[in-house]
Amino acid sequence: MSRNNEQTLRVIGIGPGGARQITLEAVDAIAATDVFLMLDKGDRTSELTAVRTRMLDAHARPDHRVVVVPDPPRDRNPDDYEAEVRRWHAARVDALDSALDEHLPDGGSAGILVWGDPALYDSTLRITDRLVERRGDLAIEVIPGVTSASALTAAHGIVAHGVGEPITTTTGRRLASTPEGADRNQIVMLDSSLAFRETASPDDIVYWAAYVGTEHQILVSGRVGDVTDEIVAKRAHARERLGWIMDIYLLRKLG
Amino acid sequence: MSRNNEQTLRVIGIGPGGARQITLEAVDAIAATDVFLMLDKGDRTSELTAVRTRMLDAHARPDHRVVVVPDPPRDRNPDDYEAEVRRWHAARVDALDSALDEHLPDGGSAGILVWGDPALYDSTLRITDRLVERRGDLAIEVIPGVTSASALTAAHGIVAHGVGEPITTTTGRRLASTPEGADRNQIVMLDSSLAFRETASPDDIVYWAAYVGTEHQILVSGRVGDVTDEIVAKRAHARERLGWIMDIYLLRKLG
Repeated sequence: MSRNNEQTLRVIGIGPGGARQITLEAVDAIAATDVFLMLDKGDRTSELTAVRTRMLDAHARPDHRVVVVPDPPRDRNPDDYEAEVRRWHAARVDALDSALDEHLPDGGSAGILVWGDPALYDSTLRITDRLVERRGDLAIEVIPGVTSASALTAAHGIVAHGVGEPITTTTGRRLASTPEGADRNQIVMLDSSLAFRETASPDDIVYWAAYVGTEHQILVSGRVGDVTDEIVAKRAHARERLGWIMDIYLLRKLG
Repeated sequence: MSRNNEQTLRVIGIGPGGARQITLEAVDAIAATDVFLMLDKGDRTSELTAVRTRMLDAHARPDHRVVVVPDPPRDRNPDDYEAEVRRWHAARVDALDSALDEHLPDGGSAGILVWGDPALYDSTLRITDRLVERRGDLAIEVIPGVTSASALTAAHGIVAHGVGEPITTTTGRRLASTPEGADRNQIVMLDSSLAFRETASPDDIVYWAAYVGTEHQILVSGRVGDVTDEIVAKRAHARERLGWIMDIYLLRKLG
């Protein structure tokens, strides 16, 4: 198969979910792109797919193409988490490699839209690193996006830290492993089990948001001892009503 | 003095410096704002002031007004760092309070443009919290922006962390205090002394950028043992040539 014509793959951060939280740079990148590769994750995120489609309708060229790349199945509760992630990434590399061959045989540009910012808890850039190893002619461009962490703090109107203090950004899975002294300001992502219930003290402050930046946005903040039940209830209710949930929180120790 | 008419103060994140790294939401907010309050920091950042002016020229209403609020003097090397920061913040609250009285006597909206995202190492929201305490009629709106950290990782084409790992975001001042176990992926801001030279091992990897997102952008990455001298030299040269510097880096431990 010919790989002599130059291909560009743009990894485009589109922000946390609001249609207006995309940058002008990302709009420019969308308008310059021939083919959009959508990693299909199934019905679970059909509403997110709809938001991406609306962004393409608003900003892409009239003749842009959208290619759905079926996402390889993934075991979400494997015995060996990191081995399973590696296996899943390899299967996605194969799928994208085939899609580039099929849909850009004569060169041109492909784009992948990434929620938030591509540098945070997203595997697209790990996959494109592998693609570059296989395809010498593939140029990668990365467009930064507004993170859900920035949207969270903006929605609550707060600075992420006390004056000059550091911040830890982590996942629900790793929250209990944060070393003492690094737990003063923690931004927690990908936490479907609300792990702060096991790690925080009742006097810590939590700033929680679901669907941040979108029309569905829900905010709760206060002492962990006061607002945990409210977060659990609102999260469960929203997830049931909409069929999916994306949430994030900032956990802060005072004093 | 009358304070009966509603005032809105928008704190608008405009991204790390590139004219196109602003969001559509920030563009909307700029277009909706009557008066822009510019905290004047003097010649040191005159080029940054020029970038903000160009953003207003591009996005603000033709009849927008710009008010320069002289920034109170600040001791950058005080005996008591946090006390000096508090004193300086209080003086800025007074200055903004007077500016709102003078320039929005009949209500309306004011805007403050903030580099990057208002939640990270920026004091504007601490000042507006105090303003709200004084002025019951003041509504605050916060618009998140792309962080210089996201621009850094995008420019280097990297994810900020290994699979599932946490990230510490800190300052040069605090870098040496990062606890063991929280130092695997560190994003370091406000570090005029390149503190990683004292804390990192030669085999750590550093991804450094100056003026990230702008036409002046400079990137260096590699083993600390290999590239530290290059970073020191390029930083000093650029600072001398342009008269100012803004830089940031990611420090990563491997293995």
